[in-house]
Amino acid sequence: MKKHRVIFQPAGRRGEIEEGKTLLEAAQALGVDIEGLCGSKKVCGKCKVRIEEGYFEKDNIESGMKHLSPITEAEKKHIKPEDGPGIRLACTAEIHGDIKIFVPERSRAGKQVVRKAAKELSIKLDPAVKKYNVELTPPTLHDMTVGDYERVLQFLQDDYGLTGLSCDFIVLRDLQNILRAGGWKATVTVWMDQEIIKVEPGFVEMSYGLAVDIGTTTCVGYLTDLGTGNVVNTESIMNPQVPYGEDVMSRITYAMSNPDGLEIMQKAIISGLNDIIERVVSEIIKDGPPTHPSPSRGRAREGGFVIDDMTIVFNTAMHHIFLGLNPEYIGRSPFIPAVQKSLDIKARDLSIKINPAAYIHVLPIEAGFVGADNVGVLIAEEPYKQDEMVLIIDIGTNGELLMGNRNKVCSTSCATGPAFEGAQIKFGMRAAPGAIETVLIDPVTKEPRYKVIGKADWHTHMEKVNAKGLCGSGIIGIVAELFKAGIIDKSGRFVMDLGTRRVRKGVDGKPEYVLAWADETSIGTDITVTQADVRALQLAKGALYTGAKLMMKKLGITKLDRVVLAGAFGSHIDKEASLTLGMFPDCPIEKVYAVGNAAGDGARMALINKSKRTEADEKARWVEFLEIATDPAFEREFMQAMHIPHMKDLFPNLKTMLEKSGSKVEIKG
Amino acid sequence: MKKHRVIFQPAGRRGEIEEGKTLLEAAQALGVDIEGLCGSKKVCGKCKVRIEEGYFEKDNIESGMKHLSPITEAEKKHIKPEDGPGIRLACTAEIHGDIKIFVPERSRAGKQVVRKAAKELSIKLDPAVKKYNVELTPPTLHDMTVGDYERVLQFLQDDYGLTGLSCDFIVLRDLQNILRAGGWKATVTVWMDQEIIKVEPGFVEMSYGLAVDIGTTTCVGYLTDLGTGNVVNTESIMNPQVPYGEDVMSRITYAMSNPDGLEIMQKAIISGLNDIIERVVSEIIKDGPPTHPSPSRGRAREGGFVIDDMTIVFNTAMHHIFLGLNPEYIGRSPFIPAVQKSLDIKARDLSIKINPAAYIHVLPIEAGFVGADNVGVLIAEEPYKQDEMVLIIDIGTNGELLMGNRNKVCSTSCATGPAFEGAQIKFGMRAAPGAIETVLIDPVTKEPRYKVIGKADWHTHMEKVNAKGLCGSGIIGIVAELFKAGIIDKSGRFVMDLGTRRVRKGVDGKPEYVLAWADETSIGTDITVTQADVRALQLAKGALYTGAKLMMKKLGITKLDRVVLAGAFGSHIDKEASLTLGMFPDCPIEKVYAVGNAAGDGARMALINKSKRTEADEKARWVEFLEIATDPAFEREFMQAMHIPHMKDLFPNLKTMLEKSGSKVEIKG
Repeated sequence: MKKHRVIFQPAGRRGEIEEGKTLLEAAQALGVDIEGLCGSKKVCGKCKVRIEEGYFEKDNIESGMKHLSPITEAEKKHIKPEDGPGIRLACTAEIHGDIKIFVPERSRAGKQVVRKAAKELSIKLDPAVKKYNVELTPPTLHDMTVGDYERVLQFLQDDYGLTGLSCDFIVLRDLQNILRAGGWKATVTVWMDQEIIKVEPGFVEMSYGLAVDIGTTTCVGYLTDLGTGNVVNTESIMNPQVPYGEDVMSRITYAMSNPDGLEIMQKAIISGLNDIIERVVSEIIKDGPPTHPSPSRGRAREGGFVIDDMTIVFNTAMHHIFLGLNPEYIGRSPFIPAVQKSLDIKARDLSIKINPAAYIHVLPIEAGFVGADNVGVLIAEEPYKQDEMVLIIDIGTNGELLMGNRNKVCSTSCATGPAFEGAQIKFGMRAAPGAIETVLIDPVTKEPRYKVIGKADWHTHMEKVNAKGLCGSGIIGIVAELFKAGIIDKSGRFVMDLGTRRVRKGVDGKPEYVLAWADETSIGTDITVTQADVRALQLAKGALYTGAKLMMKKLGITKLDRVVLAGAFGSHIDKEASLTLGMFPDCPIEKVYAVGNAAGDGARMALINKSKRTEADEKARWVEFLEIATDPAFEREFMQAMHIPHMKDLFPNLKTMLEKSGSKVEIKG
Repeated sequence: MKKHRVIFQPAGRRGEIEEGKTLLEAAQALGVDIEGLCGSKKVCGKCKVRIEEGYFEKDNIESGMKHLSPITEAEKKHIKPEDGPGIRLACTAEIHGDIKIFVPERSRAGKQVVRKAAKELSIKLDPAVKKYNVELTPPTLHDMTVGDYERVLQFLQDDYGLTGLSCDFIVLRDLQNILRAGGWKATVTVWMDQEIIKVEPGFVEMSYGLAVDIGTTTCVGYLTDLGTGNVVNTESIMNPQVPYGEDVMSRITYAMSNPDGLEIMQKAIISGLNDIIERVVSEIIKDGPPTHPSPSRGRAREGGFVIDDMTIVFNTAMHHIFLGLNPEYIGRSPFIPAVQKSLDIKARDLSIKINPAAYIHVLPIEAGFVGADNVGVLIAEEPYKQDEMVLIIDIGTNGELLMGNRNKVCSTSCATGPAFEGAQIKFGMRAAPGAIETVLIDPVTKEPRYKVIGKADWHTHMEKVNAKGLCGSGIIGIVAELFKAGIIDKSGRFVMDLGTRRVRKGVDGKPEYVLAWADETSIGTDITVTQADVRALQLAKGALYTGAKLMMKKLGITKLDRVVLAGAFGSHIDKEASLTLGMFPDCPIEKVYAVGNAAGDGARMALINKSKRTEADEKARWVEFLEIATDPAFEREFMQAMHIPHMKDLFPNLKTMLEKSGSKVEIKG
């Protein structure tokens, strides 16, 4: 295989790369981080790089001096004149000769910041998996007719009262070596007081489980100490299925229209989950004592072997694809899932690299479009234990809604698109250092102040803060500020001629607001919020509002006591901004709660308290699914809901509330 | 890859074979059956072939004209001058040029004859796996919140009272397609009233299970109609582990002394079992209606998919190796097995190609050397339900003994070697056409009469019967006849100078008896019984006798009411001959029963009646294991037991009995 010399600047990484690899593959091979939100699907345009040396221009291609593949139509859509010369998408351009590449600051991926540690859950510790110490008398010729496994069973019965246990046969494979290696002291891991899933030599204390939340766009794993219930490490990745479709429906279509489509996407997500596992355990394996039993000859242990339990939540389509179930029938009327109940599946049956004898507990799903992730929210927030009428909004690529109280809880789902997650936003980026996360705009001067991840203080004009983009969770607040400052009107349209050069026409001729000037950034270009960004957010919030409104109509209620905002990102939604934008029907601001990743909280609860699993199965069946997309009122409601509320009418108390919270607001209209 | 032209005569098969393949591999590739008892271990010498054309002599090798690899030391041990020129072992000689080979009659493998159909078992039909027909109402938008699986569960509960069922998740993968393919009629297969392991479109009647008996030397599978309990097909193979050791101890040693030894032997037996499965279902797949569900895209079904349940018996070493359990500790004091209880293991976890969601039920083992096969014998013969004191001898490569009645049953094991199975016997062969199975020798003339498999009548000197060798199960009878005719004495030594040319010195200078002259055979050489053959049998029967005698001593009994002879071959042991040889302590001949493959019967019973599985677990623990090899009296008893009994003393009633049975006997000494 022919190889070419490739150099990445400013990192200075260099190496020999195989003919035909993309620049992104080369960067990965050489340890250079390039941003790529879309997973090489050529849609996000975030992986722009500048070619410094090497021939890539049209002329050179024609003369045969081709060091990169020709520029594609897909690239042309993303590369703008203002990007300057020599720009290519790293995910697309293929290497056919020696080349030197510069990675602009904006395209450099930082490590994603999980800004809030997983919150502390107040729940009784009673995990499904427990460890027991056993100490046996070595066998002699006088008791030779008792097998090693039978000795272990006898001890567990005598000392712990465990009866009727079974054992995964693969545990038996190493049992004899382990008992002898530990001098007849061993630690036995038991699942649900039913089945032995591990035996380790000596007395082992630490026990780990992994709670997993697989979103359409983002996947996160919470490594949990099953002895304390605390999260000891968190890792997240982009869902590796993104290249096969950005939303649920396009992935279902991909599965139906490609012979191996389902298998390809299943392998992608399982491989991604295995990446999370490898990274999430790397520290405990490095620092802590190895809790691995001495493997038998020829049986290597993966790092994830320390994990003995896993709970997982996802939407229905991700659920089906993850399990290799045909998603066809959930994609078309009458939207029947293959299975709703929770499932316990051996890790090895799914090629998930934790203890192969461990079970993956898949939480139940509610209905076609209301998945196990919403069941996670349900058991975390427990509306069925409350008197107040609550609306719970779980915002991911899909918005899932729960509404009700102890008498009745209903659910529905609405397509919001990925705007709330920062995708399809011009300067959207992950919650990494350099991302603008909070903005305040002076209603008089229209000048912004903002906070950047990685900097303690608000940006002032005195200091260069190296802003790089907007993080997903900040976008709601920014648009709310634009509205409050009168920069956009209630239809979402930019108001021009405000006497500020912050509002201007972009290169596409459409209005935009400059949040940070080029010299405040590390990317050397103005960071703006565009008309298209505002529109994407309006569509998303309109869908949520319509969903909630129609649910209230169907439930026959006119008033919500409480609104819970749950987001999949671990970061929190700005509840004031969500009120300003009208993301949901009226509710007193002090009764609006942002709870972070409630779906993930549900998965964590099911991990550390097994009765939550039974509760999930029962309540998932009890919740009533409401179909709102087919409601004839949907379209009309949706058109209205796109507007940003006329605050005086919709939220008569908003001005007071916002002032109380420290903002200065000019109510217009 | 270079190929050479290879021709096999007299079959006339020809083809292009890759450089370096052995003649045996070439024969297999071209569909030519060559005998190979030892599984290419180069020990049995049964695969001799004659090179007709092509250069293989030393001279030609040195001149570079090498069409076969040089003759090895292993081959030289087997090739005798009387074999004539040009003889090679097919398992050893490698092809390096064009070649033409003649396969002598003696080396041609016939299809093994299972001479007795599996006997009818009188047991209530109550299999662990049952099929249920379901008929669902197609879902509509009005009941869209019920999953397909939940619909099936509801039907099974309403119509059959089945509650608390779980489902193998791989069944869910095809569930939706299958329900729709069958027009919402389907057949659900349920294991132990607990778990759904298959769903098929439409109403399916036939249901199959496989009972498997894995012996050290031979493996057999009984395909059983679970609707009737009848065996519909039987297939057997040599145990493919033979190349790694002919007996249990040498295989344990192989596992301990080779890094991948355990894995290699496990793969070999599982691959062999998959061969049995493929062959045993070939007819029902050909003739019967396909009971396969329409596979999903890209998921091919193996033929064995029609099998939904499997029971399996084997000795403890075969049990451990089959499951990938380290056999080290059962091979050394205090001989502790990893596990004794029965196990239910998913077929896919062992790569066994039946329904991958089906369970393999592994019967329990008793103690280190008394395995699941003996538990099979135990539940088939049920000594624990009887008043009479019974001795049950299960003869395979190991001899396993059960002794007792309803008050107490003891077990032990003794190493008999493979003589009873026909291995290590000079003209030993499988029970295939041409094998001499029964012999009578005239005590006066010393002339034999014999019966050959595939011929209805006894051989007379008028007719050419094409004898080819001695089958394993016939060897006991032949040695008994040699003794009764005075051709060997009670020490097993040949008596020379009897005035018959049938008794002579063989080419090795040791005595032998000519059973068939070359012109009566199809192999063109005299078929003889040698001094070494007699010695091998004496060792085997001595081990059995000693085991039984020491058990009686330990149990404090002096008399047996009944002796049951169980053999692993499906063929039956000659009970008269076994009395003559003194294989077991004295017992009236009318109380000696030959029951065929009782271990296999036990596996079949556990397959068609699930309460036999519970019974096996209970009784395996109840039986008391006696260690006799460490008994100080063992060696002395064994030396005595090697002798062939002085019949007048040991069996005072034998002459009458034998005469009653039609033999004419001259009692000597």
